[in-house]
Amino acid sequence: MATRLGKTIQLDSFPSILSYAAIVGKKEGEGPLSTQFDAIHNDTTLGEKTWEKAESRLQKDVLTKALEKAGLPSSNIDYVFAGDLLNQCIGSTFGLREFGSQFVGLYGACSTMAESLAMAALFVDTSVASHCAAVTASHFCSAERQFRFPLEYGSVRTPTAQWTVTGAGACIVGPSGSLPIVKAVTFGTIEDLGIKDANNMGAAMAPAAAATLIQFLNDTSTSPDDYDLILTGDLGQVGSDLLKDLLLREHIALPNHNDCGLMIFDPIKQKDVNAGGSGCGCSASVLCSYICNRLRDGSLKDVLFIATGALLSTTSTQQGQSIPSVAHLVHLSSSR
Amino acid sequence: MATRLGKTIQLDSFPSILSYAAIVGKKEGEGPLSTQFDAIHNDTTLGEKTWEKAESRLQKDVLTKALEKAGLPSSNIDYVFAGDLLNQCIGSTFGLREFGSQFVGLYGACSTMAESLAMAALFVDTSVASHCAAVTASHFCSAERQFRFPLEYGSVRTPTAQWTVTGAGACIVGPSGSLPIVKAVTFGTIEDLGIKDANNMGAAMAPAAAATLIQFLNDTSTSPDDYDLILTGDLGQVGSDLLKDLLLREHIALPNHNDCGLMIFDPIKQKDVNAGGSGCGCSASVLCSYICNRLRDGSLKDVLFIATGALLSTTSTQQGQSIPSVAHLVHLSSSR
Repeated sequence: MATRLGKTIQLDSFPSILSYAAIVGKKEGEGPLSTQFDAIHNDTTLGEKTWEKAESRLQKDVLTKALEKAGLPSSNIDYVFAGDLLNQCIGSTFGLREFGSQFVGLYGACSTMAESLAMAALFVDTSVASHCAAVTASHFCSAERQFRFPLEYGSVRTPTAQWTVTGAGACIVGPSGSLPIVKAVTFGTIEDLGIKDANNMGAAMAPAAAATLIQFLNDTSTSPDDYDLILTGDLGQVGSDLLKDLLLREHIALPNHNDCGLMIFDPIKQKDVNAGGSGCGCSASVLCSYICNRLRDGSLKDVLFIATGALLSTTSTQQGQSIPSVAHLVHLSSSR
Repeated sequence: MATRLGKTIQLDSFPSILSYAAIVGKKEGEGPLSTQFDAIHNDTTLGEKTWEKAESRLQKDVLTKALEKAGLPSSNIDYVFAGDLLNQCIGSTFGLREFGSQFVGLYGACSTMAESLAMAALFVDTSVASHCAAVTASHFCSAERQFRFPLEYGSVRTPTAQWTVTGAGACIVGPSGSLPIVKAVTFGTIEDLGIKDANNMGAAMAPAAAATLIQFLNDTSTSPDDYDLILTGDLGQVGSDLLKDLLLREHIALPNHNDCGLMIFDPIKQKDVNAGGSGCGCSASVLCSYICNRLRDGSLKDVLFIATGALLSTTSTQQGQSIPSVAHLVHLSSSR
């Protein structure tokens, strides 16, 4: 039974993340979280003929792995919530077409892991579903050629640019069982402070992260100190700094913050990622490995997962538009 | 309080469509439903500099009109559910960024009106929200240049091709009040019978419409005769014929069927649309005008609205993939 608390939805039955899985590419597998992932692909094609097919394959494989870890056949999954960055979300629709579950397609750009997990938890909490899956992925090569330049062009990236993660994450949510549990969710509003630089998405998304976090803290009468980790994804370095500035203006300090885009790559050894990781698969693969592992073993107790999405397209940028963004929040906990 | 009935969700509180609005372009305004729309734009640009901006404007205007008809300020809308066909759904994100409501971005291609309305009704029924909006739109010119050819090229369209509607629809859903009400929703599964012709989307989508309708009829132990109208959108002529064939194989006759793609244009006077209308805005503008009007005046009592989406992209087609599709169903009624 879900309860409204301002704009936040408290999930009173504490839906459980029964299992989770993360699959990544070579570069991500060489980063600091390498031991946390379920699989690392050294071949960026995953044996497929195109990068788009590889991206679909990531979604298919990660859901298969999560189901396997939950010990559930796909027929037990009522709803799959999924989306991705590819035009018309073909990563999800082609990757997940064989599972036979009811399919609710989402578009939240890089906020998709939080949007899909929030929706899965809400459906379970309201007894509309027994088991749901939340899935997303991104792929460096398909994103580069769709949003930026042909890879062969070898263009130089700006210092504020982020590196699209090749990776995928999936959670299976059920009524009760394993840890972590989902205690509350807050869907965000669209924020747009007028940033127009498509190579500085962190800055464009920081206002959305700030707005959703402030909303949640107000709704729940809590402060950042009440959580072990406030985890954004994926603001990168520029966006993370800006988030802290925006919160300080509201007299909110953020000591226990980290960002999935800063965690997945090594800032010294992998300097070429510039401002950090991004893409739907970045926060998805960090959440569905290291973060859920630590919530499960109890070394993290309460985590606010705030995934941010930049809601632009190449067309909107070419037409001189600014970058609207959204952030959705999921409160994960290791105790009821 | 929502109740599960197989894969169908019965909305026991009967959420109400408090208001609805439809805005269309010139060609749609010359069709048989011309007197039903809230506004008809003879200028396809709506005074905007690009067709994509015009499409965003359609979403903004149609939600503004629906709010005006409900007598509600946008601050009363908790959640907006929206999506569209443009890459990264910029029709919705740019069109709706100023309203300040919590934003849940969806991707269901031409099934978006049913997906968004189902979600809005479900959020209200489970008391997660008090008022929600469901919005979508499409634009012939932006769709042609994104999915097919530059308009200036003047390419000849195949007989099975459908005409993307320039139009938008919005519903405001609240706990109780006006008619029609939403009695049940069924989210669809992804179906793919291997159709590869992107100029024959009706055929690609018919299996999804059949699957969702059969699921709903089984779940509710009802037959097509129990409804005044079974309304698909947008199968066009080819897909509608195929739907009937597919249902006959299951020994289900469909006497009271119509399709939004066949209703919005005149098959004699507007022959150039070929197999009928399509696009998110087709079923949205037909539902949010003529259909809701007839449910409100009681001349239609029970309608099954089944919007279908072809989940392809130009990239998937170029890579030789078939066309997966999905159909979501909303049971609308003029009595409790």
